[in-house]
Amino acid sequence: MKFGVLGTGMVGREIGSKLVALGHGVTMGSRAAGGEKARAWVASAGKSASEGSYADAADGADMLFNCTSGSGSIEALHAAGKERIAGKVLIDVANPLDFSKGVPPSLFVTNTDSLGERIQREFPDTRVVKTLHTVNCTVMVDPARVAGGEHHMFVCGNDADAKAAVSELLRSFGWKHLLDLGGIEAARATEAYLHLWLKLWGAVKSSEFNVKIVT
Amino acid sequence: MKFGVLGTGMVGREIGSKLVALGHGVTMGSRAAGGEKARAWVASAGKSASEGSYADAADGADMLFNCTSGSGSIEALHAAGKERIAGKVLIDVANPLDFSKGVPPSLFVTNTDSLGERIQREFPDTRVVKTLHTVNCTVMVDPARVAGGEHHMFVCGNDADAKAAVSELLRSFGWKHLLDLGGIEAARATEAYLHLWLKLWGAVKSSEFNVKIVT
Repeated sequence: MKFGVLGTGMVGREIGSKLVALGHGVTMGSRAAGGEKARAWVASAGKSASEGSYADAADGADMLFNCTSGSGSIEALHAAGKERIAGKVLIDVANPLDFSKGVPPSLFVTNTDSLGERIQREFPDTRVVKTLHTVNCTVMVDPARVAGGEHHMFVCGNDADAKAAVSELLRSFGWKHLLDLGGIEAARATEAYLHLWLKLWGAVKSSEFNVKIVT
Repeated sequence: MKFGVLGTGMVGREIGSKLVALGHGVTMGSRAAGGEKARAWVASAGKSASEGSYADAADGADMLFNCTSGSGSIEALHAAGKERIAGKVLIDVANPLDFSKGVPPSLFVTNTDSLGERIQREFPDTRVVKTLHTVNCTVMVDPARVAGGEHHMFVCGNDADAKAAVSELLRSFGWKHLLDLGGIEAARATEAYLHLWLKLWGAVKSSEFNVKIVT
């Protein structure tokens, strides 16, 4: 498959490299083509990797990843092009982090709305699936690093076919336990978990952890 | 020990019964002494159980539980008496649920503040420990009901001795895995988890579940 990965930060590069390793074609998109981080990634990732603008990444992609910072996601998606991303599955990995009051961050949208919902409302013809944002990026692409993969990844979104396609991709990443939390409004729940994630990070003294739901 | 349990709802009664079963004395407090639920509980719970007003419950108690609804907690604690609860350990089990927009509830305080912090600020001489509010009340008092007790309970608060005393009590309830998340401001994290708890409840189709932190 052909993937467009929006955002060339740590999360985008981890996901891009995993997709290439799985045999997919990947175009990494950033504000402007030819950025240093994107070129360095292409040089190391192999011949099915390329880079360009957000629009270049979206162009012809079968599936998109939003790995931009939460505060810039809507703008980045507009730069990718509303028509260009219409009908496509967009895996939203961003968190609505607000660093304006320092560290630890708070959230710039929460409780009665979420970034996932904002993106879905702004791009109603794009099929937004929120997932992966509840773990560190090294765990996103290699869940077996934590407890042999015996832990859960949450998935939510309004389009059942999109969720099924994303679930298949997640299984190819190594995810064994997926939990469908319903429509995109469940992003309020998984984004709000970020507060707990940050405290757990401090308590377990490692960013490589996750939750296992037990009954 | 002698406990005062503020709130005669399901949570208060479960906790009161557990404390009596463990050999403690318990006074259940409500807005006015002699309420129907409180009297029924006393009749079933045995001779070390009594009931009265919030002030009666706080009077002479070694440790207090706040099991009132989040929206009424500050008022209930004022009714118990600021001087009467000064110096005491208060285990805050309440969630800041806001049902004004229907079901599922949102939170009336979140993100940059929490109910636990509000209570600590309003009653600075009371030693507030936030815990247990992340699981169903049947699991609070009997963690072995879920996965043989192999899951985590979070504890936070500003007073290390108070957290140690509460941790000992939790172990007597059967909790094997306690995670200290730091000061009372960590209540932002554990209260915000309520959004995820509600979605998980829907997904696992049982209120008897919890999270196990795996690394």
